Amino acid sequence: MYPAWCRGGSERRRYAARVPLSRDPDRLVAAALAGDRRALARAITIVEEGRAGAAAVLGAAYPRGGTAYRIGITGAPGAGKSTLTDALITALRAGGEAVAVLAVDPTSPFSGGAVLGDRVRMQDHASDAGVYIRSMASRGHLGGLSTAAPQALALLDAAGFPFVLIETVGVGQDEVEIANAADTTIVVVTPGWGDGIQVAKAGILEISDLFVVNKADRPGVDDAVADLRAMLTMGAERDWQPPVLTTVAITGAGCNEVLDEVHRHRSFLEQGSGLEAGRRARRRGELHTALAAAAGRRAAALAASPEQRAVVEQVEEGALDPWSAAERLLDS
Amino acid sequence: MYPAWCRGGSERRRYAARVPLSRDPDRLVAAALAGDRRALARAITIVEEGRAGAAAVLGAAYPRGGTAYRIGITGAPGAGKSTLTDALITALRAGGEAVAVLAVDPTSPFSGGAVLGDRVRMQDHASDAGVYIRSMASRGHLGGLSTAAPQALALLDAAGFPFVLIETVGVGQDEVEIANAADTTIVVVTPGWGDGIQVAKAGILEISDLFVVNKADRPGVDDAVADLRAMLTMGAERDWQPPVLTTVAITGAGCNEVLDEVHRHRSFLEQGSGLEAGRRARRRGELHTALAAAAGRRAAALAASPEQRAVVEQVEEGALDPWSAAERLLDS
Repeated sequence: MYPAWCRGGSERRRYAARVPLSRDPDRLVAAALAGDRRALARAITIVEEGRAGAAAVLGAAYPRGGTAYRIGITGAPGAGKSTLTDALITALRAGGEAVAVLAVDPTSPFSGGAVLGDRVRMQDHASDAGVYIRSMASRGHLGGLSTAAPQALALLDAAGFPFVLIETVGVGQDEVEIANAADTTIVVVTPGWGDGIQVAKAGILEISDLFVVNKADRPGVDDAVADLRAMLTMGAERDWQPPVLTTVAITGAGCNEVLDEVHRHRSFLEQGSGLEAGRRARRRGELHTALAAAAGRRAAALAASPEQRAVVEQVEEGALDPWSAAERLLDS
Repeated sequence: MYPAWCRGGSERRRYAARVPLSRDPDRLVAAALAGDRRALARAITIVEEGRAGAAAVLGAAYPRGGTAYRIGITGAPGAGKSTLTDALITALRAGGEAVAVLAVDPTSPFSGGAVLGDRVRMQDHASDAGVYIRSMASRGHLGGLSTAAPQALALLDAAGFPFVLIETVGVGQDEVEIANAADTTIVVVTPGWGDGIQVAKAGILEISDLFVVNKADRPGVDDAVADLRAMLTMGAERDWQPPVLTTVAITGAGCNEVLDEVHRHRSFLEQGSGLEAGRRARRRGELHTALAAAAGRRAAALAASPEQRAVVEQVEEGALDPWSAAERLLDS
């Protein structure tokens, strides 16, 4: 057999075909960007699981992104986020737009498993080539979006979807993270979900670009809308006044209006410098998160090394405080 | 004037008295541990704000702790955690026990301010020398308990309170953190709060040692109790079966029974090796968090340095992915 460098084109192609796509980051990314959904799924799995090649996949895909418009959908458990997401997919598809969805579910911290029950409905779109849905468990204890979520979003962005929906359950910190990851953030509440003070407490007033009171066929919807509007007038002055809409997502009622308001918010951002400024801030934030994670990994490896066992043992016994122990380990 | 080394004892004392207590970590900690509440408050502020002397305060106080029994109280916004905390203070005081409370409130990520409205009721105990209440904002975006919360808990522990209550709002990640920080974790829910799947989704089934259905004078309480019990039997097998209790915290109804169950859980932990094992795991976790935070601080300082400006600029423009940029910065 001739060495690889003197093989002809067709033989090179045959040789390349024998190397699994998942072992060749450049070819995998090229396939994913050319519309191969299985290649895209594999690329996301590689970055999600931090497998060999993850860095190469990200390095190849990241600079190809930046065109997707990212819509975040968040709110308390049971508010109907998945149903609204489903309705927004339908509305975007009716307009002929391809759409990717990243659904991030909380992980049970002890069992390690994610509860993905609500995702079942979305699978109705599975046979539509213009829709790509990916579920992801939020790993670890650093918040609602996992480390891999921004990476998966970068891949979906690079794959050329004009719209990417990001859905995550939870209140508080999750919403802050989703607001950082999205261009437009929708917060979904339900009638009776909570009075204004709870909205303010969770810190979600400032991060929402659009409020949706879902399940608007239930009693209390007018009160919920009035509460939100009152809180919004009391909040900090913003150039963009977040609208408060009502939907019955399960029937689709009001969902086209939600999409109209998303487009209106997008125009608002694009007319000012908001879109680019927001994206620069997001990338800077991703860098800081990545730096902290990478530095933390290196530090954890340090703490696990045998020569540092004595310091760790002192901390476990309560004889040495963890904070000076950490500085001591890093100085060593 | 004679130099300091040849002054007599009384003159040394007078000299020491002119150095503010807050500038002398050892004396501050000694005063806090001797029961001086103002010194305790100052010590907590020093660690919370990361002021000069924080490391010395922690280093001096930490090894003196380990005797407080820590009770975590958590649940969704509006469940009545503060009211239950207030009722537990009353019940513990009726038994003659001193008690400290650390109430951790979410920070508004944009305004930076914490909403501490619910704390007002607790201030009824302010004139009771056997009660010490401290509110703290959860800073940053790394979860429900701030970095400083474990440090404040270490100080309250060292100050000799036999019971420390930790109250935090939120669902999901906050509860995991509070479960790590507490010996016994109480999860407070309300009738109609959510069906079983929501409890399982938030991952709180496994972290709770005790469920309280508060506002038990409202409709739906029997369903809520039945839902929780059903979910508990479906969950992973545990040696400790978390009881489900009902309270009307605002009247105090059922609150003594909650305290009885806390004592029963404590006996359970003390009879096995659970208490010490849990505390060792907590300290190890605190070390890992401290390491990640300290490593992240050093990494952030690196990213802010002028010679790394070009790399950061590339990331902000979207030309370089943040994850390889992070590795590059750490390698440099």
